Amino acid sequence: MGEKSVDQASLKMLNKAAQEGIETAWDRYEKQQPQCGFGLLGICCRNCNMGPCRIDPFGDEPQEGVCGATADTIAARNLLRMIAAGAAAHSDHGRDIVTTLYETAAGETQGYQIKDEGKLRALAAEFGIPEEGRGKEEIARDLAREAMEEFGMVKGKLQFLNRAPEKRRQLWEKVGITPRGVDREIVEVMHRTHIGVDNDYVNLTLHGVRTALSDGWGGSMFATEFSDVLFGTPQPIKGQSNLGVLKEDQVNIVVHGHEPVLSDMIVQAAREDDLLAAAQEKGANGINVCGMCCTGNEILMRHGVPVAGNFLQQELAVVTGVVDAMVVDVQCIMPALTQVARCYHTKVISTSPKARFPGADHVPFSEQTALDTARKIIMMAIDNFSHRKEELIQIPDEEMEYMAGFSVEAIIKALGGSLDPLLDAIKAGQIKGIAAIVGCNNPKISHDYGHLTLTRELIKNDVLVVQTGCAAIACAKAGLLLPEAADEAGPGLGAVCKALGIPPVLHMGSCVDISRILVTAAAIANALGVDMSDLPAAGAAPEWMSEKAVSIGSYVIGSGIFTVLGTVPPVLGAKKFTELLTQGAQDVLGAAFAVETDPMKAAGLILEHIAAKRKGLGLES
Amino acid sequence: MGEKSVDQASLKMLNKAAQEGIETAWDRYEKQQPQCGFGLLGICCRNCNMGPCRIDPFGDEPQEGVCGATADTIAARNLLRMIAAGAAAHSDHGRDIVTTLYETAAGETQGYQIKDEGKLRALAAEFGIPEEGRGKEEIARDLAREAMEEFGMVKGKLQFLNRAPEKRRQLWEKVGITPRGVDREIVEVMHRTHIGVDNDYVNLTLHGVRTALSDGWGGSMFATEFSDVLFGTPQPIKGQSNLGVLKEDQVNIVVHGHEPVLSDMIVQAAREDDLLAAAQEKGANGINVCGMCCTGNEILMRHGVPVAGNFLQQELAVVTGVVDAMVVDVQCIMPALTQVARCYHTKVISTSPKARFPGADHVPFSEQTALDTARKIIMMAIDNFSHRKEELIQIPDEEMEYMAGFSVEAIIKALGGSLDPLLDAIKAGQIKGIAAIVGCNNPKISHDYGHLTLTRELIKNDVLVVQTGCAAIACAKAGLLLPEAADEAGPGLGAVCKALGIPPVLHMGSCVDISRILVTAAAIANALGVDMSDLPAAGAAPEWMSEKAVSIGSYVIGSGIFTVLGTVPPVLGAKKFTELLTQGAQDVLGAAFAVETDPMKAAGLILEHIAAKRKGLGLES
Repeated sequence: MGEKSVDQASLKMLNKAAQEGIETAWDRYEKQQPQCGFGLLGICCRNCNMGPCRIDPFGDEPQEGVCGATADTIAARNLLRMIAAGAAAHSDHGRDIVTTLYETAAGETQGYQIKDEGKLRALAAEFGIPEEGRGKEEIARDLAREAMEEFGMVKGKLQFLNRAPEKRRQLWEKVGITPRGVDREIVEVMHRTHIGVDNDYVNLTLHGVRTALSDGWGGSMFATEFSDVLFGTPQPIKGQSNLGVLKEDQVNIVVHGHEPVLSDMIVQAAREDDLLAAAQEKGANGINVCGMCCTGNEILMRHGVPVAGNFLQQELAVVTGVVDAMVVDVQCIMPALTQVARCYHTKVISTSPKARFPGADHVPFSEQTALDTARKIIMMAIDNFSHRKEELIQIPDEEMEYMAGFSVEAIIKALGGSLDPLLDAIKAGQIKGIAAIVGCNNPKISHDYGHLTLTRELIKNDVLVVQTGCAAIACAKAGLLLPEAADEAGPGLGAVCKALGIPPVLHMGSCVDISRILVTAAAIANALGVDMSDLPAAGAAPEWMSEKAVSIGSYVIGSGIFTVLGTVPPVLGAKKFTELLTQGAQDVLGAAFAVETDPMKAAGLILEHIAAKRKGLGLES
Repeated sequence: MGEKSVDQASLKMLNKAAQEGIETAWDRYEKQQPQCGFGLLGICCRNCNMGPCRIDPFGDEPQEGVCGATADTIAARNLLRMIAAGAAAHSDHGRDIVTTLYETAAGETQGYQIKDEGKLRALAAEFGIPEEGRGKEEIARDLAREAMEEFGMVKGKLQFLNRAPEKRRQLWEKVGITPRGVDREIVEVMHRTHIGVDNDYVNLTLHGVRTALSDGWGGSMFATEFSDVLFGTPQPIKGQSNLGVLKEDQVNIVVHGHEPVLSDMIVQAAREDDLLAAAQEKGANGINVCGMCCTGNEILMRHGVPVAGNFLQQELAVVTGVVDAMVVDVQCIMPALTQVARCYHTKVISTSPKARFPGADHVPFSEQTALDTARKIIMMAIDNFSHRKEELIQIPDEEMEYMAGFSVEAIIKALGGSLDPLLDAIKAGQIKGIAAIVGCNNPKISHDYGHLTLTRELIKNDVLVVQTGCAAIACAKAGLLLPEAADEAGPGLGAVCKALGIPPVLHMGSCVDISRILVTAAAIANALGVDMSDLPAAGAAPEWMSEKAVSIGSYVIGSGIFTVLGTVPPVLGAKKFTELLTQGAQDVLGAAFAVETDPMKAAGLILEHIAAKRKGLGLES
């Protein structure tokens, strides 16, 4: 697999960690070798206590579990549960945001306000909620209430589905995968994958896609849209990235996880005079709030807050010795963090009732006292500033500017008020197509290598790249999110970017903000009068590891967009199921998965796909 | 493990199957040996694509997954997902019944009616729905609508929780495990068990119990109560059990699975003259509808329909060569059935959109055309009667009468209108206590041996046994559900049973009907003015295998009742988590699990427990 990372800051910290005897994810990954072949192939079943059962991948006995489940059934059920978990994570995130909006409108929260009234009113109109002559709180309460209903919907279907092209909606109806309430689909996955329920991998897969669609066009979209209402819709903004953003002379607070409800308050509180004074009193020249993972993305999109790194850098941030508090909420937070922190002075502060970490300090967060909690946490970090171990401090100097904040609204604004300039560029072949590169890090592939290699190759070939999550942070660190990166793009894309003053790689936000990409793709398809599956567009998750990524990949496919996975999903032991995902889905959904661990080859697949779709639309390749 | 079964009918069919080269669950279980030790111990994690990860159970490396998750985190997360799947199965079942009631009230279904108006009105009163002067359809619509809301509840908590003793509800509040909407808790399990969310096995366990409670006092209780409204509240009724109920000269239809919505219609339609005439035309002397598993329990409780067997007998029924149709809906249906059926003439007919089986005939079922679908299915069975392979027919002659139908209402009626005679018998020590023996079969233990041994030992020691599911069918086949079985009971229990004319083992219904046991236990606790954890009561699942059983065990514990598991749950590789489940839970919930694979020893544990609780209540042991 080559180097552990292509990011110099990370390599330096890995070196430091090794010298100091600190174990990181890469070490634990090594210790797990060899990983279980049955698990890797997806043919191990633990869904009842007659098992665990395993299918012999070489065709010998056993070929069935105790109940009679085949490799295809087992792998499909396992993948469905991954989708369920991923959709649940996004759905829960969305529910929290919606609830926060509801409570804010009811005057029950502290520190929040409705920042984007225009978006609120637009959403209200979309949901058929009267808004003329009504105050924003009143509208917000009705809107949030309506949205809450969609999580546990009794009858009907998700409102946001109407954003999809007519043809796509018809296809969903025809295939029977129009999602109903978000929670209901997830629960049905768990039911269907119970012993002795659904044993038909095709039927299972269809429900998996339906559930994923309830994430993309439901849970995630709620998270995005309602966050915009509460925290403001992102607009282009600049900031700094990589571990070099940590400051030796300041109180460093890294906010890590996924939801903006707490981190936004911390950003707000860190600017308060008395807290700044308290920091100064301890000898610090300020309070430096930095982001990590998607919590990082949420606040960099809206405040230009520095981002210290992506998923595999969470331990490495602690290794710098200057993180006074690592504040975590939910998702992708390594439990190992508390162990690494123990070797330095870092306080790991957990905040969510849903996510406790043995060894962390727990400061219970609630929307009702959000700002006070934020202040309390900042004070804990300030108090911890003096506990640093001088001999363990080393901050890599890598730091890179980024431009982020590309919400759909921001993109349209950058284009001068309509999608037309983008459509014209695509039609003219200046821009060949659009690729969404998203997802995590994974020690199975050199850190950031997949993201950077694929991104560079695509922009070089005039493919506009849109990103979210850890992929976007990788590109931020590499300078690819700057308008100057247009120099790395092909002549067509480069010229467009230079004309508009935008980077060739657009940071659209956190993982739930892939919903922004769906909205963009739907808008383009609608403008062209075609289905999303007709677009010269593709998705890629070069370094994915989380179950959320499985849900994301599935709703992208379900929305008609070809997707390349850069790490191997646990399905290859199930031949027919693998064929369904990589070929059969094409006939049913107009899109399928490809698995390609070499990002250069993945770029080739995407370029080929885009060329074919351009041809289909009658555009010159 | 000794003989494969203690049931002679099953042994005969296993013998026949072996001669005819038919593979059954026992054979597939053998082929799975040795089963994966990591899986058996619960220390294999597949919750992200950095894995799969495994913890070394001998204390060597690795002791953590790639993310840093420990054995305790991993095992707890895995068990939580089992609870989620089990609760989802019950919840989905409940939702289907509630929906059927709603649609029936709206006049949109075929064949259903509101059979127990008294129960409907009682439930309406419980939910605060006005019922005076209103028609039953009107009330039913409001009630069902209210119930639907509780699956996806936005705010609030489950209505049925109010049935629990005040002390128990206070404890749930204090510990923070009062369940909210059914679906929401399940979704939160999936979120919390996603990589990097909840890593504290205690916090995880508490949420697992909360989720299970939303099953027991939510999904399952809805399934039971609303089924009673639609199909009638069970009253004592007699019928026949075991494979001997299959008739060589009749069209045999085995309804298998879990929900009564289709099976009740089949029972109804099978009595129609034209279908009986059609059967006669084919040379059959009638239509013999038999049950299997919980679908069987649903219709035997209400119609005294014969039950052909429990979970491990589903394949063996086909091996008799006389099952003309095996009609399945959801849950515990072996996909292997279609393979066994291929060797005989049996048609496996799937009916639910949620559960397809490669090789089965699919007849889509909907409540709107339920009776027509039932008729169609019966005709398929009739048509198949002539395809029997004479040389493959062999029906074991084992057949045993049972008395079932012990709903809470029926028990109170049998007691003469109030619980007092039962309470008096318990206080006087005639009856020492009550044990609920429930759950599945599992080839890990000789079929029916666990159920029968434990039941016999307990009634011999004057413990009244209540049962549901496959445990109850095991006892039906052994004659323990007959009033005459009082002779096998100890002198105290025996005398009470004889006086009342009831069996010492009360069949309370299907697996969702364990909610009836909760209601009974709550009513007794309320009558005594104590918490449920103070009662001389215990639960046991001697042969459990399904994830539903994990949810059930967890809500029983969460309701304060000691529970003994007869097959080993996948947790033993996680020392602290195991201690929490088997000891620590006692301090928090007033009840814990025990794991005991020897049913005689399990009886000892239960008798000890009951004696201790009697002492606690100041009753003579």
